[in-house]
Amino acid sequence: MKVYVTGHKNPDTDSIVSAIAYAHLLKEKGEDAVAARLDEVNDETRFVLKEFGAKKPRLIKSGKGKNLILVDHNEVRQTIDDVDEAKIIEIIDHHRVGNVETVEPIDFEIKVIGSTSTIIAERFFEERIPIPKRIAGLLISGILSDTLLLKSPTTKKQDVKIVKSLSALAELNYEEYGARMLKAGTKLLDKSGEKILRTDMKVYEKNGVKAAISQVPVVDEEDIDSVRSKVRESLEESCDDNDYFVHLVMFTYVYKGGTELMGCGPGLGGVEEALGKEFENGLMFLEDVVSRKKQVQPHVMRLIQKS
Amino acid sequence: MKVYVTGHKNPDTDSIVSAIAYAHLLKEKGEDAVAARLDEVNDETRFVLKEFGAKKPRLIKSGKGKNLILVDHNEVRQTIDDVDEAKIIEIIDHHRVGNVETVEPIDFEIKVIGSTSTIIAERFFEERIPIPKRIAGLLISGILSDTLLLKSPTTKKQDVKIVKSLSALAELNYEEYGARMLKAGTKLLDKSGEKILRTDMKVYEKNGVKAAISQVPVVDEEDIDSVRSKVRESLEESCDDNDYFVHLVMFTYVYKGGTELMGCGPGLGGVEEALGKEFENGLMFLEDVVSRKKQVQPHVMRLIQKS
Repeated sequence: MKVYVTGHKNPDTDSIVSAIAYAHLLKEKGEDAVAARLDEVNDETRFVLKEFGAKKPRLIKSGKGKNLILVDHNEVRQTIDDVDEAKIIEIIDHHRVGNVETVEPIDFEIKVIGSTSTIIAERFFEERIPIPKRIAGLLISGILSDTLLLKSPTTKKQDVKIVKSLSALAELNYEEYGARMLKAGTKLLDKSGEKILRTDMKVYEKNGVKAAISQVPVVDEEDIDSVRSKVRESLEESCDDNDYFVHLVMFTYVYKGGTELMGCGPGLGGVEEALGKEFENGLMFLEDVVSRKKQVQPHVMRLIQKS
Repeated sequence: MKVYVTGHKNPDTDSIVSAIAYAHLLKEKGEDAVAARLDEVNDETRFVLKEFGAKKPRLIKSGKGKNLILVDHNEVRQTIDDVDEAKIIEIIDHHRVGNVETVEPIDFEIKVIGSTSTIIAERFFEERIPIPKRIAGLLISGILSDTLLLKSPTTKKQDVKIVKSLSALAELNYEEYGARMLKAGTKLLDKSGEKILRTDMKVYEKNGVKAAISQVPVVDEEDIDSVRSKVRESLEESCDDNDYFVHLVMFTYVYKGGTELMGCGPGLGGVEEALGKEFENGLMFLEDVVSRKKQVQPHVMRLIQKS
């Protein structure tokens, strides 16, 4: 039975490397598993794949008739088209549980942990399947990317422990490597506003009310001045075209910490209320915020549930 | 932080012993965990608790303001009242994923395995927390009850392996014990039809369409003749009172195998179609069927999704 292992639409590094690594694990166990992806990879992921000599997962566009394992997501809205006509056989994730429903029991694991790559690495250790250097490097990249170099508040002790174990296997200085990786993914100057907005964007829906949150890690702080206006332009278009109750952009400062927030949509007042702070000239600086999942998304979810 | 660990409404043995055992594990880790239940325990569970000198979990009726860990279920419809006002912090289960939604990530594990007790036992082994004789006996009971003495098609190798490991710890002959346990839970003659129907009954809902499946294990085959008519009477009342699209009763023969099906509701024709067999005098014998979850519930779910 052929099985496709795929991360979410608009994939980030954690989604792509989790799919590659878990497909590898399953193949080692004798299963016919194929690493897959739903969209083009981003610049950071491109850097990562090149660094460890790995190929892009296979691009798939429809779930029709396929056996699927979903990694790094569980919400129907974030997965492959025609998912109703697919057979989902397993889900491994670290996000909120998002209204999944299956007819039969499936293997389903969500952990409150920094990245899906951490869970996949644990599976290798638990099942005593050797991790090749290449896979170790990819998994380190997934963890460092999702936890912003282990500094996000979503980071758990287990993430740090696993990065250290994998670094020994990959013979890699993960701090030096992580800095290079993030820098490769955050060249903002030559990208369009649209591209910056969509590189890491998640869409949520509740009772027909939609919201989106884009996150843009900022490594070179001098870049940000020149990108704000093009992102603002694309953001307004996004709200107009998609009827979002709110679409937020988080410019998250990787080294100094904190997030600059930009937004559009009728829900902005509710966002101000939830965060206890107001937008000034369309911007709001949140000193202690770096995690979308933990520090912004729950507010947005509550907001669209109420509206 | 006080945490209540609870199984589903109308609890079976697996729900009760999973709650007791997991609360014990958490207490060993220094957490303030309380084993809880949502309804009265059934005759089988009463026997089990007595056998191993365990107390009934604490009865709780509202989730308001409580921190909850759900074991052996994940569907909102099967859990505590006022669950919207509770904080769910973890879910451990072996049933289908039933439309759960959380605002933040939580630890969530569903495995395709014979019982929740098996998963809880694995946690003890993984975390190297010693299993007292009493807890080993309870967990064996949960596994044997849910897998009908390891004979249900839901049984996995891991269930058998764990029962054997636990039996060594509990110094128990699990085959002899399991037979006594099932017999204690299936004294049908002196129960009302209503009681027999409700002892192990699950309710499902999709788009406002409701269905129910009761399962009645039959150990003493001569009992069944005298219970059919009282169950039939209560069944008709159940369909009238609750507006079920279909309510099925599975009389499952523990030793000879197979299930006798009884049903009410407008969906019965769809059930016949799905199973490829017709009711005769209101009964249908299914030779290879013993598992509600695997062999009957998926048909019913598809039926109410379509209707």
